[in-house]
Amino acid sequence: MRTQVGIVGAGPAGLLLSHLLHLQGIESVIIEARSRKHIEERIRAGVLEQGTVDILTESGVGERLKREGLIHHGIELRFNRRGHRINMYELTGGKAITIYAQHEVVKDLVSARLAAGGRIVFEAGNVSVQGFGGSTPTIRFQSDGNHHELTCDFIAGCDGFHGVCRPSIPASALTAFDRTYPFAWLGILAQAPPSSDELIYAYHERGFALLSMRSPKISRLYIQVAPDENINNWPDDRIWQELHTRFATDGGWKLTEGPVIQKGITGMRSFVVEPMQYGRLYLAGDAAHIVPATGAKGLNLAVADVRMLAQAFADFYSSGRTRLLEQYSQTCLRRVWKAQRFSWWMTSMLHRFDTDSPFDQRRQIAELDYLTGSRAAMTSLAENYVGLPWD
Amino acid sequence: MRTQVGIVGAGPAGLLLSHLLHLQGIESVIIEARSRKHIEERIRAGVLEQGTVDILTESGVGERLKREGLIHHGIELRFNRRGHRINMYELTGGKAITIYAQHEVVKDLVSARLAAGGRIVFEAGNVSVQGFGGSTPTIRFQSDGNHHELTCDFIAGCDGFHGVCRPSIPASALTAFDRTYPFAWLGILAQAPPSSDELIYAYHERGFALLSMRSPKISRLYIQVAPDENINNWPDDRIWQELHTRFATDGGWKLTEGPVIQKGITGMRSFVVEPMQYGRLYLAGDAAHIVPATGAKGLNLAVADVRMLAQAFADFYSSGRTRLLEQYSQTCLRRVWKAQRFSWWMTSMLHRFDTDSPFDQRRQIAELDYLTGSRAAMTSLAENYVGLPWD
Repeated sequence: MRTQVGIVGAGPAGLLLSHLLHLQGIESVIIEARSRKHIEERIRAGVLEQGTVDILTESGVGERLKREGLIHHGIELRFNRRGHRINMYELTGGKAITIYAQHEVVKDLVSARLAAGGRIVFEAGNVSVQGFGGSTPTIRFQSDGNHHELTCDFIAGCDGFHGVCRPSIPASALTAFDRTYPFAWLGILAQAPPSSDELIYAYHERGFALLSMRSPKISRLYIQVAPDENINNWPDDRIWQELHTRFATDGGWKLTEGPVIQKGITGMRSFVVEPMQYGRLYLAGDAAHIVPATGAKGLNLAVADVRMLAQAFADFYSSGRTRLLEQYSQTCLRRVWKAQRFSWWMTSMLHRFDTDSPFDQRRQIAELDYLTGSRAAMTSLAENYVGLPWD
Repeated sequence: MRTQVGIVGAGPAGLLLSHLLHLQGIESVIIEARSRKHIEERIRAGVLEQGTVDILTESGVGERLKREGLIHHGIELRFNRRGHRINMYELTGGKAITIYAQHEVVKDLVSARLAAGGRIVFEAGNVSVQGFGGSTPTIRFQSDGNHHELTCDFIAGCDGFHGVCRPSIPASALTAFDRTYPFAWLGILAQAPPSSDELIYAYHERGFALLSMRSPKISRLYIQVAPDENINNWPDDRIWQELHTRFATDGGWKLTEGPVIQKGITGMRSFVVEPMQYGRLYLAGDAAHIVPATGAKGLNLAVADVRMLAQAFADFYSSGRTRLLEQYSQTCLRRVWKAQRFSWWMTSMLHRFDTDSPFDQRRQIAELDYLTGSRAAMTSLAENYVGLPWD
């Protein structure tokens, strides 16, 4: 087997890259360890930046997104039992976010790739990458009981944080930047109409809470819990009680309950590896960086990476120029670090840290008080939330 | 002796309060432990917010300030060997800061008080405050070898962080919020024309540096050092060398040297006491709160406190209403905490922390990179730096 760009991983990064390359007439094959059903049902992020929506739409995979996505012009910050709306649309001159689950994006991309004759190998076993330090990159894997080798010009490592690509680069060539947070999120999906039309980020002395949604009938709710929390300690009643407490306002706002259809705990981590490339292997998305979920940046950073990578490949194949490929890591990292900064800031401002002194807690409230009263500060939050300009 | 408002401390807070009360026809006496010469020569802050300049000007003590103060429309942030100007004037719709040393403000206020027949007792010994929990506040002190007692309606504690007023309040009535930083500033005054027309805040991997000025002929320069640094380890040559290193740019910018005429080390601390009042005793300025110098907010917060306190006294004496006096602490603290937030943020962004991980250091650079590229973020910095609106 031979192709131009071998892609490891059929998450949003790998699929979108393959799709964008196809539009430029560049051939690719995606090797994915999991089944199609698995990746199309895997619950992940759900907040798309304006630029992410734009690129999906412009590349022709935004039809269902446009029909089913929920466009939000603002978010609410809630603290001291009061809500404060950040009118992102007005503050950013007309930009918005769209609520559309990551696995729906994945479905749309899989379907577009297959319709266009794109090759995706699902349930590939023992995937490994070789030769990218020289001029003959290969991806080896097992499929249908046979050993295969995919020879390619370049490899794109889109296989996530736990994927094989990053660890295949010599450790001495990479620097990892890591930060874990002393808490996790307990998240539920509930069959209940969202209690708010827009997301609510709540700071409470008992910890952070987030109200989000998947559809007009399905709520997505989160609470900050201990990092080693056991999900068995959280029967549904306790979760709802905690949610009621953290979202409580003086205005009689009401949280709608409903059957809990999914429940899980997610850790909070910041991670970046530098550089994002080695020889003919390019990392994109979670394979290269992880953000805490508070800023809703993970999926959007992956899209920004592959947008850049697709441009670099297109430039190379049309002209032979390697400048964009050489600069790929440097270009992406500037955006990655700004997103890390924003995600860290949102996380720090909205969570309760056990190590925080009473001074820090007062400062946290002062930050929320300042932020919700300053047009400049709200604009800064809004422009990051809807997504900074590409370059 | 008897007066309406007994004021402890002839710093900018006590002097301005006495001056503002006088303009409202309210009598006060200031009791100061140090000599007039001492307070008029004590080197302190030198950056006046727009609102501070306005209140000094409107109350008739801004003549020399207007003549000698240096109006700055911007500041520079320098990192990665490049400077980035924050055009505060344009970003805030015409606000600026004025460089005018605190001891010059003190001179102007002393002179105005004395010219108007105001009473300031200098070199008062054994100052103590009593009776403010009930209806007969008194200030006892020694002067010219005699014991004196000043009876008053109210006491204003303007005697700084180490003064007697705050510790005279029952400890159980106060909550202190405290944070120390793991570094100090080594500052010099040098007989050298400032190397920049505006202040330069520099982040460098060796630590923070600040270029400020006292006049067109005198530079004020600071470098971040260890909190327990010994000034004897810093001969002038070493200080200049460190300043050259931290301010170095790729553009050939040059730091002008000159004879060092003053040299000292200042700790960095955040401190707030709540509430800022007890019975008939009201704390203002450093007696109630300390900010790290990075945000240049100390003097300006003191001015904001006494502006509010003077209004509250004026309202009481003209109408008998106590509402503003009762709300004094609550009103001031909202501004105080926002200034603490800003000072902490500027300090965190610009200093090197030994405890910071490589992740934090990258995040710090990303914050500076984002800030200097975002009009919203620059506006947020600017509006805080020139001073948030009074209410």
